[in-house]
Amino acid sequence: MIKAGIVGGTGYTGVELLRLLVQHPEVELRAITSRKEAGTPVSAMFPGLRRHLDLSFTEPDAKKLGACDVVFFATPNGVAMNEARAVLEAGARIVDLSADFRIRDLAEWERWYKTKHGAPELVREAVYGLCEVNREQIRGARLVANPGCYPTAVQLGFLPLVESGAVDLDHLIADAKSGVSGAGRKAELHLSYAEAADNFLAYNVPGHRHWPEIRQGLAQAARREVGLTFVPHLLPIIRGIHATLYARVTRELDFQALYEERYEREPFVDVLPAGSHPDTRSVRGANVCRIALHRPPQAGTRSDMLVVLSVIDNLTKGAAGQALQNMNLMFGLPEATGLAQPPLVP
Amino acid sequence: MIKAGIVGGTGYTGVELLRLLVQHPEVELRAITSRKEAGTPVSAMFPGLRRHLDLSFTEPDAKKLGACDVVFFATPNGVAMNEARAVLEAGARIVDLSADFRIRDLAEWERWYKTKHGAPELVREAVYGLCEVNREQIRGARLVANPGCYPTAVQLGFLPLVESGAVDLDHLIADAKSGVSGAGRKAELHLSYAEAADNFLAYNVPGHRHWPEIRQGLAQAARREVGLTFVPHLLPIIRGIHATLYARVTRELDFQALYEERYEREPFVDVLPAGSHPDTRSVRGANVCRIALHRPPQAGTRSDMLVVLSVIDNLTKGAAGQALQNMNLMFGLPEATGLAQPPLVP
Amino acid sequence: MIKAGIVGGTGYTGVELLRLLVQHPEVELRAITSRKEAGTPVSAMFPGLRRHLDLSFTEPDAKKLGACDVVFFATPNGVAMNEARAVLEAGARIVDLSADFRIRDLAEWERWYKTKHGAPELVREAVYGLCEVNREQIRGARLVANPGCYPTAVQLGFLPLVESGAVDLDHLIADAKSGVSGAGRKAELHLSYAEAADNFLAYNVPGHRHWPEIRQGLAQAARREVGLTFVPHLLPIIRGIHATLYARVTRELDFQALYEERYEREPFVDVLPAGSHPDTRSVRGANVCRIALHRPPQAGTRSDMLVVLSVIDNLTKGAAGQALQNMNLMFGLPEATGLAQPPLVP
Amino acid sequence: MIKAGIVGGTGYTGVELLRLLVQHPEVELRAITSRKEAGTPVSAMFPGLRRHLDLSFTEPDAKKLGACDVVFFATPNGVAMNEARAVLEAGARIVDLSADFRIRDLAEWERWYKTKHGAPELVREAVYGLCEVNREQIRGARLVANPGCYPTAVQLGFLPLVESGAVDLDHLIADAKSGVSGAGRKAELHLSYAEAADNFLAYNVPGHRHWPEIRQGLAQAARREVGLTFVPHLLPIIRGIHATLYARVTRELDFQALYEERYEREPFVDVLPAGSHPDTRSVRGANVCRIALHRPPQAGTRSDMLVVLSVIDNLTKGAAGQALQNMNLMFGLPEATGLAQPPLVP
Repeated sequence: MIKAGIVGGTGYTGVELLRLLVQHPEVELRAITSRKEAGTPVSAMFPGLRRHLDLSFTEPDAKKLGACDVVFFATPNGVAMNEARAVLEAGARIVDLSADFRIRDLAEWERWYKTKHGAPELVREAVYGLCEVNREQIRGARLVANPGCYPTAVQLGFLPLVESGAVDLDHLIADAKSGVSGAGRKAELHLSYAEAADNFLAYNVPGHRHWPEIRQGLAQAARREVGLTFVPHLLPIIRGIHATLYARVTRELDFQALYEERYEREPFVDVLPAGSHPDTRSVRGANVCRIALHRPPQAGTRSDMLVVLSVIDNLTKGAAGQALQNMNLMFGLPEATGLAQPPLVP
Repeated sequence: MIKAGIVGGTGYTGVELLRLLVQHPEVELRAITSRKEAGTPVSAMFPGLRRHLDLSFTEPDAKKLGACDVVFFATPNGVAMNEARAVLEAGARIVDLSADFRIRDLAEWERWYKTKHGAPELVREAVYGLCEVNREQIRGARLVANPGCYPTAVQLGFLPLVESGAVDLDHLIADAKSGVSGAGRKAELHLSYAEAADNFLAYNVPGHRHWPEIRQGLAQAARREVGLTFVPHLLPIIRGIHATLYARVTRELDFQALYEERYEREPFVDVLPAGSHPDTRSVRGANVCRIALHRPPQAGTRSDMLVVLSVIDNLTKGAAGQALQNMNLMFGLPEATGLAQPPLVP
Repeated sequence: MIKAGIVGGTGYTGVELLRLLVQHPEVELRAITSRKEAGTPVSAMFPGLRRHLDLSFTEPDAKKLGACDVVFFATPNGVAMNEARAVLEAGARIVDLSADFRIRDLAEWERWYKTKHGAPELVREAVYGLCEVNREQIRGARLVANPGCYPTAVQLGFLPLVESGAVDLDHLIADAKSGVSGAGRKAELHLSYAEAADNFLAYNVPGHRHWPEIRQGLAQAARREVGLTFVPHLLPIIRGIHATLYARVTRELDFQALYEERYEREPFVDVLPAGSHPDTRSVRGANVCRIALHRPPQAGTRSDMLVVLSVIDNLTKGAAGQALQNMNLMFGLPEATGLAQPPLVP
Repeated sequence: MIKAGIVGGTGYTGVELLRLLVQHPEVELRAITSRKEAGTPVSAMFPGLRRHLDLSFTEPDAKKLGACDVVFFATPNGVAMNEARAVLEAGARIVDLSADFRIRDLAEWERWYKTKHGAPELVREAVYGLCEVNREQIRGARLVANPGCYPTAVQLGFLPLVESGAVDLDHLIADAKSGVSGAGRKAELHLSYAEAADNFLAYNVPGHRHWPEIRQGLAQAARREVGLTFVPHLLPIIRGIHATLYARVTRELDFQALYEERYEREPFVDVLPAGSHPDTRSVRGANVCRIALHRPPQAGTRSDMLVVLSVIDNLTKGAAGQALQNMNLMFGLPEATGLAQPPLVP
């Protein structure tokens, strides 16, 4: 049994980790910390976990956490960078669900996260935990930077195209829509039901923190810089991301075959039959990314725009599920262990 | 007082017409027809209209309708084309909210609507009722083809750009999202609450009937063919369309000024301050289109992609409100008569 | 024209007042105050009011407010009690939408609102603004205490029964459900979309502040104390209250006729035909209470339980609409002036 | 491994059965029938089951079904009564999720379901599958009538009270609210998103089919007839039932202790601490009923009304989960096998 700890388990990625961990056959949850809730039984805060989990929140303690085999940081940005070293030195491996170790360019990170980075040397060590790209490095990693939710959906949607070099890499467009849980478990007016329900809007169009993370991943796949217009929108749903991706074809290929081959052995990427329209509920609560390709009409006979539809659950494949997928790889378990639940539909 | 009739008043555009007409100071509603509901008091079907409206549905009768000054067709596609002539000949003017007279190219219309057109000569006579483009022709028109909901949001969002010729007209992209009422008042499984709520998906990506209508309008504005990729999505909201539009800049302009000047005198197009993110509820139940412009980062210093956000209420500015706006023009009333209600927020 | 001011216009009752006031033909809005937002144009905070309202928020100033004919307090509980006197003395009349003047028993008020009352003499002067009960006193009132949202729905639903004395007055039950806007425009976790959407629960079952207000009104109608079990629930809708009321019949009457007669001349209470099921959207944005009566099966031939369904929009008939109805009465206008908008359906 | 078949797997209870069965370690799904969809792969209709299930729908065939150990009928009412005998005779045991075998009084059944019953002798044989009441009979049953969703929530909520005899059994009240999936996977206008979203109403107040089923169960527990007023409401949520139950106390007991003792050993009934407010999402997708007790204020010092809050997921504990719980009992498996998933929160 893998002994696991969670730092900062009171947010949505934390409680999703708990939901998945209590169903994982090879993990024993040893500790879950929260400064604010220390002493509170986890199931008092999340009654859905009554009879599933008997732990209480505790004060964070690097030594106790270090006695775990793996520690998940489900903390706000800026926490893991200061606490990871002690946990690593105490002997645990880490999957960080925050953004602290995702961006290799420190200046870029500091520009978007508006703080000085606390552990540059760990940024260098960290492996970016997109299993479909970095599977081998993840197996041996001590510190994995779990990808963001938008970056997961957009990268998996664009990867085969970008690797193929068959599209205009200077003008990629990602029109992305996220459910409200993507903003975290927060008391903010614009996230309240009376504001967000029966409503829809774009936000952060002038710049979103996931834009540099996506560009870094796509540039690595392309082996060159890419131009990406990224427009996030707030969807009145609880969970789910739908990324609608646009790329101009510069060289004709059988794109359906390209995607099917690229993801043929991936347990958690599902390329749908041509002409499909994946909906977000088809991945609700499930650790899977579903992708479909289209070539819509444009004008007369010309049509050089490829449209890719990519959906994930932002809390599962976009956060906690992917974190467990990373853990499975790190500890030599079959990658799908504990992650085989179908989505909740309807 | 203008005497008005409605053919087919049991759908959502019909009941929205009713909501607006009972508040219009210069209109007297004389007849509302529905074969299926003939004899039923309107307020029995729509209890919200109790004490506002004392009419019952009647069988359609061209003579009685012809005694009205104006008749609104709020019928499914394919009805008005067969019934309009008799009503016109009986002396009424018509605003048709269906798609029957929107597309001038009959072959194109027949390809998308999969039926032979019943009144080609009326297609030639009809004026496309986008007031912001055809105001003068509408004043004198006997038959106005009220624009579709997506076409209203997308055309108003693209018009200044397309007229300016400062963007790549072969690769326009409209990523459009519509509330469920856009599909009409229908018993269809995919529109049911348990299917559509807490869910989001693209649909009809291989081809949507509003695509040729939008292209026709943009081509007219551009005085050349345009290439448009149009991807509609189904939003879990009741009313509202949000169109996110992408255009590649080929000549630099002050686009904010371009839009503000183009729509300066328009009573129902509101160009927001630069950097705004209009939400669909800001137009809920209101006859207005709100537009904002962005120039998001793309890569390094380059950034040639303009993003336009355009929102309307699909039932108001996208259907019934626009129909009354057309009627006001046709009868020489101030354009905003009866259409000044602010949106319902929250 | 009536000159009106609003104190505290940034909450949901405030913005609903604004929506209705800009459509009211006999009111000119002179001032709207908000300490926090002083200087901000109202339409910058509520873009739906662009082109409808040209005011900015100002610091509260009793003298300026006193120059109005009427001042609406749309403030949190505990504000009006301290500021009303100065405004009254400066010459304005007041409609207070908070709870400060609703409960005549000061000890009871202080027990539920957990603060010492700042103006006991004004509590004695204030008229409880349920127009259907206190119409005559309201006409002459200087200070009107606008009823709470639950109290409006529950009292209007129970009144004819309680006045008739034909039911068991010791065991009334109100199972009430409210949309989220009833909690106000607040950043609170339990009101956030990801918590409140696709979810339903009872709250404050051990005691809710509207319980004593309802009991006070029913006791007055009954001319004796009444026993009331009140269970509020949080509905995942934006606006709307549905009260399901249970009363045990102790003397048989034609209850349908009783209700129809009681409310025959009421412009804003609509007794539906027997057997109806009013839905909350049938009053969305409209200043009306719809009521239906049922006598469901119970066991064998016995059936002594009467069920009353009562729906309002909590922000309109339950707050701002009712406030304008009170204002119309206070200033001798026809009671329905500016309040005739049908609901927004769908 | 238990060999299982499903008759009529295209509705919501059917797809929920599939979701749970593919996670059940002791069941092998052998057949799933649908006349209409015969030949269609199940995962083409429910893409969420891609990679989880490799079956296609087949024509119903009693012989093939009879080769299963257990057959679940997830058919509309009126089907199982005609097809069950052949399946039983072919050797399978049956859990029927429809209403065909729930009501022992045939005349009563026929009055509510408006058809002649096709298998009265099976009604006599069938065991009502509320495990918390009939556990022992279920173990040996050949045919189990799986309870309805409302009846599960209401009976579990009332049982300890009714068994205790400490409340007025002639005036029980169940104010029940159900998510839209409770109406089934149907194309009906009143269930469509644009009708049911942002809306709330009572329905079928004059009589609902679950009323006689609930009364039958409560009468059995009370060993006498009971009077029950049952008012169902349609909630704008996908899954979930919240029953708010009212009972007048006639003899004082420690009700909290009564409930805790009654359900102490029940794996799927969770009595919350006194003062709790269970929400429907705390059981979303989970096979559990959560219950809380309250004694709200009523008037002065008197308070004789007990309020019970009872929540379930209508598709899980209210249908498919309970069906598997019954199957586990019938085949001697630990009752919770395959049913231990926590709810999906948020």
